[in-house]
Amino acid sequence: MELHGGNIYKAARKLGIKKQELLDFSSNINPLGIPQSVRDIIHNSIDELTAYPELDYSRLREALAAHNSIQPERLTPGNGAIELIYLYLQQLKPRKTLITAPTFSEYSRALASVDCRVEHFPLCENAGFALNSTLLTGEIRSGGYDLVIICNPSNPTGRFTPLEEIERLSQAAAAAGSRLMVDESFIDFTGEMQRQSAILLRAPHIFVIRSLTKFFALPGLRIGYALSYDREMLASIESRRAPWSINSLAALATEVALKGKDYINRSIAFIKEEKERLYCELNKIEGIKPYHPAVNFILIKLEGSLRSGELRERLLKRKILIREAGNFEGLDDSFIRVAVKSREDNNKLLEALRAEV
Amino acid sequence: MELHGGNIYKAARKLGIKKQELLDFSSNINPLGIPQSVRDIIHNSIDELTAYPELDYSRLREALAAHNSIQPERLTPGNGAIELIYLYLQQLKPRKTLITAPTFSEYSRALASVDCRVEHFPLCENAGFALNSTLLTGEIRSGGYDLVIICNPSNPTGRFTPLEEIERLSQAAAAAGSRLMVDESFIDFTGEMQRQSAILLRAPHIFVIRSLTKFFALPGLRIGYALSYDREMLASIESRRAPWSINSLAALATEVALKGKDYINRSIAFIKEEKERLYCELNKIEGIKPYHPAVNFILIKLEGSLRSGELRERLLKRKILIREAGNFEGLDDSFIRVAVKSREDNNKLLEALRAEV
Repeated sequence: MELHGGNIYKAARKLGIKKQELLDFSSNINPLGIPQSVRDIIHNSIDELTAYPELDYSRLREALAAHNSIQPERLTPGNGAIELIYLYLQQLKPRKTLITAPTFSEYSRALASVDCRVEHFPLCENAGFALNSTLLTGEIRSGGYDLVIICNPSNPTGRFTPLEEIERLSQAAAAAGSRLMVDESFIDFTGEMQRQSAILLRAPHIFVIRSLTKFFALPGLRIGYALSYDREMLASIESRRAPWSINSLAALATEVALKGKDYINRSIAFIKEEKERLYCELNKIEGIKPYHPAVNFILIKLEGSLRSGELRERLLKRKILIREAGNFEGLDDSFIRVAVKSREDNNKLLEALRAEV
Repeated sequence: MELHGGNIYKAARKLGIKKQELLDFSSNINPLGIPQSVRDIIHNSIDELTAYPELDYSRLREALAAHNSIQPERLTPGNGAIELIYLYLQQLKPRKTLITAPTFSEYSRALASVDCRVEHFPLCENAGFALNSTLLTGEIRSGGYDLVIICNPSNPTGRFTPLEEIERLSQAAAAAGSRLMVDESFIDFTGEMQRQSAILLRAPHIFVIRSLTKFFALPGLRIGYALSYDREMLASIESRRAPWSINSLAALATEVALKGKDYINRSIAFIKEEKERLYCELNKIEGIKPYHPAVNFILIKLEGSLRSGELRERLLKRKILIREAGNFEGLDDSFIRVAVKSREDNNKLLEALRAEV
């Protein structure tokens, strides 16, 4: 089973084609592609690479702070969201962590790297994997967790839990002496970042993770950041991490990309419309059940006897790569995940699914 | 005091000029600049950034393995040499480490991040900071160290310790149950990598660090690697690290750069000749004493009353940035370090030093 979007390389090699020839629905990237302003800055900044990145990334911090209307000292940039997850866990050293399931498998891997025990809190398939904050707060209160991890919007379910529910969890966590990490890597796609982010709760036991590479279609460049009202945590992370972890092009690209309000608004508007269209069209296909998404990807259940591995192989022959979702804790090989891409690409996926399911 | 080359940003801001207007002798980068083949691949690969980097970096590994005539499983790539130093120390968790002094200050910072006690082994200024392996093996044998760190060629002294001396240290370390980390970030500049690297000893207690960003003038892009015959150590590092730490452009640039044998040979030949010329010319200037370099930078002692901070300020007014060396353990504010740059740039430095010292 392919664990990550990165495996487009292997899939293409196996087929003996270039990876550009594959339609990649396995990776949740903004279908509008890299902003032109970012292409330009990369083209024009190659000479910047002869200098080390700025040690404190002060310009990058200011750009991220302005984007979030927050003070620069409440954030730290990272070499992708994933670096910040590892740094946070290395700093916190939790002994027992609660994760909702299904969710992004890298949390468990990162927790294993700090020898932390992991418990999964299963979300109900029949409720569309909605997060039931009443049940979850009960578990948080009684379970003795050092840390609770929520992915919001959730990968792979595509559900978005509203801030008032997150607030209930946050209060339960605070009362129980637990920390709360909220991974908001996909929140930009919802258009609700300014109104629904957990950072708005201003609670020092909350650590918010953000990615920029998904929304700006730059996963190869690696850039993310963390937001927190726990100054001591941010300071510890910064004093103990390896220097220069963010490359200069990623820093420059971010500064430019965050200024591109038109691209940001067009992306949100496009996803808002196209995810609904793709969801509705998927819903019409017999034998599969899509879960309604808040974001740029859709979780799908195969309702017949066809397994995700077999479907992946069939679609690969049509040069379409999907993500098997059976390696998400709590899912099995009756689940797949597809990205929302351009209308044209999505139509090719729909056509292929109609033929192969 | 400015700790790192990255502070060209602050120096330029302070002067109110662009950093391109500063002649940067503070950062030890190949004066031949970025290879044309690397510029081309970056220009032509921006679309690659829409995919995640390859999860196992198999092409990058093969390129590095071929460059070192070693099996790919004996190396691991990293987000700059510094990431690998941190990962190695996090894995090893040494309690007591011996570092020769003066040396690169980041070792101490990285050791502090794993709460390790550090002892410094002072190298003798009168001996030109040569590593005396007889004295050092004695200390290794008796000191009860978990780890010994050697920078070879040494930053900031520019000395290169021959392999037979490293072998003596390695044997002493093995006998004492110590590990040996050899940072060879500057070995490419010597032209002796294939004959003098510590990896040739094939000893499983040795961990070799390499940088590619200095030799290929790409410190902003971040790429390094580690070599070791300790498979378990490499496997542990790989299983516990955050994924995708190397950006796609760094991986592609490395694959292309390592094929550029002409650039590699021209760089080695240029440094070999120009470092000697610069050293000889520096030697003629009254009031300063350069230490003979094996590499692309030169440590200089100010013999009069002029302190490094004052000289740095004077040279900055001439738009020349040097590195104060007083923050290297064992040195003080009578030391500076300068890079070997183009003949024209070096002549400007010489002229400025003749006027200001």
